[in-house]
Amino acid sequence: MTYKLSQLAAHVGGQLAFGPDREIAGLCSITETGDQASSHLSYLLPQRSFAEIQKSQVQSFLVAQLPAELEERDALAGRSLVTVANPELAFAQLLAFFHPQPRVEAHDIHPTAVVAEDVVFEGPVRVGPFCTLEAGVRCGGGTSIGAHSYIGKGTRLGADCRIMASCTIYHDCELGDRVTIHSGTTVGADGFGYANDKGRWTKIPHVGRVVIHDDVEIGANACIDRGALQDTVIGKGSKLDDLVMIAHNCKIGEHVVIAGCSGMAGSTEIGDRCQIGGRVGFSGHIKVAADSAFAAMSGVFRSVPAPGFYSGTPAIQHSLRNRIYIEEQRLPEYRKRIQQLEERLEHLQEDKAKGDD
Amino acid sequence: MTYKLSQLAAHVGGQLAFGPDREIAGLCSITETGDQASSHLSYLLPQRSFAEIQKSQVQSFLVAQLPAELEERDALAGRSLVTVANPELAFAQLLAFFHPQPRVEAHDIHPTAVVAEDVVFEGPVRVGPFCTLEAGVRCGGGTSIGAHSYIGKGTRLGADCRIMASCTIYHDCELGDRVTIHSGTTVGADGFGYANDKGRWTKIPHVGRVVIHDDVEIGANACIDRGALQDTVIGKGSKLDDLVMIAHNCKIGEHVVIAGCSGMAGSTEIGDRCQIGGRVGFSGHIKVAADSAFAAMSGVFRSVPAPGFYSGTPAIQHSLRNRIYIEEQRLPEYRKRIQQLEERLEHLQEDKAKGDD
Amino acid sequence: MTYKLSQLAAHVGGQLAFGPDREIAGLCSITETGDQASSHLSYLLPQRSFAEIQKSQVQSFLVAQLPAELEERDALAGRSLVTVANPELAFAQLLAFFHPQPRVEAHDIHPTAVVAEDVVFEGPVRVGPFCTLEAGVRCGGGTSIGAHSYIGKGTRLGADCRIMASCTIYHDCELGDRVTIHSGTTVGADGFGYANDKGRWTKIPHVGRVVIHDDVEIGANACIDRGALQDTVIGKGSKLDDLVMIAHNCKIGEHVVIAGCSGMAGSTEIGDRCQIGGRVGFSGHIKVAADSAFAAMSGVFRSVPAPGFYSGTPAIQHSLRNRIYIEEQRLPEYRKRIQQLEERLEHLQEDKAKGDD
Repeated sequence: MTYKLSQLAAHVGGQLAFGPDREIAGLCSITETGDQASSHLSYLLPQRSFAEIQKSQVQSFLVAQLPAELEERDALAGRSLVTVANPELAFAQLLAFFHPQPRVEAHDIHPTAVVAEDVVFEGPVRVGPFCTLEAGVRCGGGTSIGAHSYIGKGTRLGADCRIMASCTIYHDCELGDRVTIHSGTTVGADGFGYANDKGRWTKIPHVGRVVIHDDVEIGANACIDRGALQDTVIGKGSKLDDLVMIAHNCKIGEHVVIAGCSGMAGSTEIGDRCQIGGRVGFSGHIKVAADSAFAAMSGVFRSVPAPGFYSGTPAIQHSLRNRIYIEEQRLPEYRKRIQQLEERLEHLQEDKAKGDD
Repeated sequence: MTYKLSQLAAHVGGQLAFGPDREIAGLCSITETGDQASSHLSYLLPQRSFAEIQKSQVQSFLVAQLPAELEERDALAGRSLVTVANPELAFAQLLAFFHPQPRVEAHDIHPTAVVAEDVVFEGPVRVGPFCTLEAGVRCGGGTSIGAHSYIGKGTRLGADCRIMASCTIYHDCELGDRVTIHSGTTVGADGFGYANDKGRWTKIPHVGRVVIHDDVEIGANACIDRGALQDTVIGKGSKLDDLVMIAHNCKIGEHVVIAGCSGMAGSTEIGDRCQIGGRVGFSGHIKVAADSAFAAMSGVFRSVPAPGFYSGTPAIQHSLRNRIYIEEQRLPEYRKRIQQLEERLEHLQEDKAKGDD
Repeated sequence: MTYKLSQLAAHVGGQLAFGPDREIAGLCSITETGDQASSHLSYLLPQRSFAEIQKSQVQSFLVAQLPAELEERDALAGRSLVTVANPELAFAQLLAFFHPQPRVEAHDIHPTAVVAEDVVFEGPVRVGPFCTLEAGVRCGGGTSIGAHSYIGKGTRLGADCRIMASCTIYHDCELGDRVTIHSGTTVGADGFGYANDKGRWTKIPHVGRVVIHDDVEIGANACIDRGALQDTVIGKGSKLDDLVMIAHNCKIGEHVVIAGCSGMAGSTEIGDRCQIGGRVGFSGHIKVAADSAFAAMSGVFRSVPAPGFYSGTPAIQHSLRNRIYIEEQRLPEYRKRIQQLEERLEHLQEDKAKGDD
C-alpha cells in the first residue's frame, strides 16, 4: 500500500513544498541506496545541511524548511520536500502510521497463564503464554503482558502498558499508564542494603516500592530496585535504555533520558529533563539539577547544583574536560620542558655564581 | 499492630534510655515528615550528629549512646531514644520483625512446574509456577524457587535458599544454605574462552562449576560464569548487587560486598571482606588483598598486595587519586605557567647575552 | 575411561615427542595440584617458559615445541610432552572430545511448549519446557531451544543453534547456523530512539531487525537491539561476552571478540577481527578499523581509522596512555617544581635588578 506524499504531509501537519507528489511506500534512512531510495521517505534534521540530501539517493524528505538560496533549491531539482515543524517527530509519527502497533481490543488470556483468582482486569488485557499474575494484581485495560512475564503480589499496572516477554516485576509495585518495559528487565528487586555486624553483613529488608509514572519506557535487561523504606520513583515520560540500573530510593524526574548501561547508586535524585549518555555512573545520595546533560562514560560523584553539559570522571564542565583530555596527552612533553627549565636555570645560576666570584 | 518502644528495645538487646515509652507501629527514615514521624522508629548512625535528630520530625530513634552533653540532651526533650550497640543492625532486625519473610513450612510444588523424577527435596520446598528442575537436582528444605526459574541438571541448592522468579542456574552448580538470588540472574553460563585458530575463534568447553557458599546474596540480572576447568567460587556471606559480572574461575572471598554493575575478568581473586563500589572493573588473573576497598568506577589493572582504599583508573591510593583529580583540572594553568617560565628565562638569557657583550 | 597420550596426540594432529605414553583421564589446569596432576593433560602457551612446566605438578603437557636446550629437556625428565602446532586449540579440541556436547538427533518438543501451528522445523529440533515459538518461526535442524525461551513472530533460527534457557528473541530476527546464545540474553528489543517534541519524548518505532551470522556466540544477559530502519548485524564467528550491549543499527564485523560489560551506542561499525576488552564503551556513529584492539575499560569517542592497540578514556594509543597514567601521578610533584622554578626565577630577576642598580 502506498500513499501520496501530500497525504502523508497532511497527516503530520506539514505540506509538500517542493517537487512532485510521489507515491510513498514507507520510510527509509538517508543512507538508503536500494529500491527504497525512490519509493520511501526520509528526513533531514534542521541542523544538517541540504548537501546531505544532494549526496543521498533518497528522493523524498521531511525538512524543517526549504533551502533559503535559489541555487540550493536548484541543486535539489527532482527531489520532493515536505516541510514540517519537527521533521524527526513527523518521521516517528509516520513510522507509527506505516507500522501500527496492534492495540489490545479483546480480552485474551492465554490458557497456560497462571492468574490468581482475585486479579482485577479493568478492561481488555492480553496475557501471553506462561505468565504468572499473583494475588492482588490489578491491570488497566489495553495492557499487554508478554509471554513468560511475572507480576508479583499486589502490583498494579496502568492502562495501555506493554510488558514485553520475560519481564519480572516484584510485589507491590505501581506502574502508570502507557508504560513499556522490555524483555529481561527486573523491577522491584531488593536494594543493596546491609548492616555490618562485626564483619558479617545482615540484610536490611526492603519494604519500599517501585513507582513508575505514565509514559515511561524501560529497555531490556535493566534493573529498577525497590526502596528500603520509601519508594524508588521514575517520573512521567522518562526513557531508560537497556541494562540501566536504578538503585533503591532513587528519584528520577520527568522526561529524563538515560542511555544504555548507565546506573546510579542509592537515593540519588535526577531532575526533570536531564539527558544522560551511555554508561554514566552516579554516586549515591546526590542531587542533579533539572536540564543537566552528561556525556557518555561520565562518573558523577557530587551533586550538580546547576544545569550544564558535564563529562569525564569525575564529571566536570564538558569544555574543561575536553581541554584536560588534550593537556594530559602533552604531559610527557611538559615533563621535558620542566626538566629543561630546571637545567637552564641551573646553568644561569652557575654562570652567575662564577660571575660573582 | 503496635509495640511499646521498650519491647522493641528488648528485642534487639537495647534499652529505652531517654524519653517516653511510645507505641511504635513500624520503621521509618530519618527524613520522614508524614504521620509516620510520630508513630514510627528511625535510627542514627554512630558517626552522625544528634543535630540530625533535632532537625528530624521523627520522634523515636535507635542510637549508639545518649548525647554526652546535658545541653544536647535538653535539646532532644520529648524524643525517645533507645540505646543499642549497633543501631543500623538493630534497625535491620526490627524491619525483619515488622515485615517477617514467609518461611517455607509445607511442601508446595506448583502443578505447572516440570520436576524431573529423580529430583530430591530434603525437606519442604516451595516451587513456583513454570519452574523447571532438571534431572539430578537436589534441594535443601526450606528453600523456595520462584516462578519461571530454571535449575539445570545435577545442580544442588542448600537449605533455606530463596531463588526469586526468573533465575537461571545451569547444570552442576552448587549453592550453600540461605543463598538468595534475585530475578534475571544467570549462574553457570560458559565463560568467555576461545582458542584462536588462524583468525577464527574455537570455543574452549567449560567443564568447571559455580560454587556459591552459605549466606550469599546476589542481586538482579547478574552473571556468574562457570569455570573452564576449575570452579568459580563466591565465598560465604558475600553480597553482590545487580548486574555484577563474575567471569570464569574467579574466587571471591568471604563477606565481600560488590556494588552494582561491577565486574571482573577471569581467574581474579578477591580477598575476604573487600568492599567494592559500583561499576568497578578488575582485570583478569590478579589478586586483591583481603580488606581492600575500591571507590565506585575504579578500574583495577594489577594485583593489590596490601589493603587500602583505592580509586580511579588505573586504581591507586584514593588520596593520591583525589589529588590527581584536582591537579588535572589545573593543567591548562600549568601549561601557561611553563610557557611563561620559558619566556622569562629566554629574556633573562638574552639580557645576559647582551650584558656579556 | 582413559586414553593413551599418543592416541590423544593423534586426535589433534600432534605427536608424543618426549616422555612416557601415559594413560590420560582428562584435562586440567597447569596449577592443578591434586590427583589429576598425574592423570590429566594440560598445555603451555607458546609464549610461556618451560620453567612453568617444571614448577607445575602436572605430568603431561601439550606444547608448541620441545625445549631447544638439552639442559632444559633434562630438567623435564619424567614429564610427557605432546607437540602440536597450536596447544591451546588442541586443548579446546580435547576438552570437546572428553566432554562431548550432546547433539540433537531426535525431534523432541517438550509437551508444555507453546508452538504456533505454522512453525517450521527443518530437521530434528529440541524445544525445552515452557518455550514459546510464535507464528512464522522457522528453525533449522539440530537446534536446541532451552527451557523458558521465547522466539517471536517470524524469527528464523539456523541449524545446530544452541539457545540456552531463558533467552528472549523478538520478532523478525534472523540467526545463522551454529549460533549459541546464553541465558537471559535479549535479542531484538527496540533501540533507544525518540524524537523530542517540545520537551517530551516520542518513540521512534523500530522496524529493523537483528541479523546474527553463523558461528556467533553471545554470553548471558546481553542485549542486542533491533535496528530502527536498517538491521543490527553481528558478523560471522564473532563472540560476545555476558552483559554486552549492542545498540540499534550497529554492524559488528566477523571474528570480533567483545569481552564482558562492553557496549556500543547506535550505528557504530566494528571492523573484522577486532579484539575488545571488558567494559569498553563506544560512542555512536563511529567506525573502527579491522584488527583494532582495545584494553579493558576504554572509552572510544571517535572513529579509529587504523588498527592499533588503544586504551583509556578517551581511547588513544596504549603506549601513550600508559605514559599518561604514570605522568598524571607525578602531577603533584610537577606542581611543586613549577612553583620552585617560578620562585628561583623571581630571585634571579630580583638579584639582577639589584645588580643593575
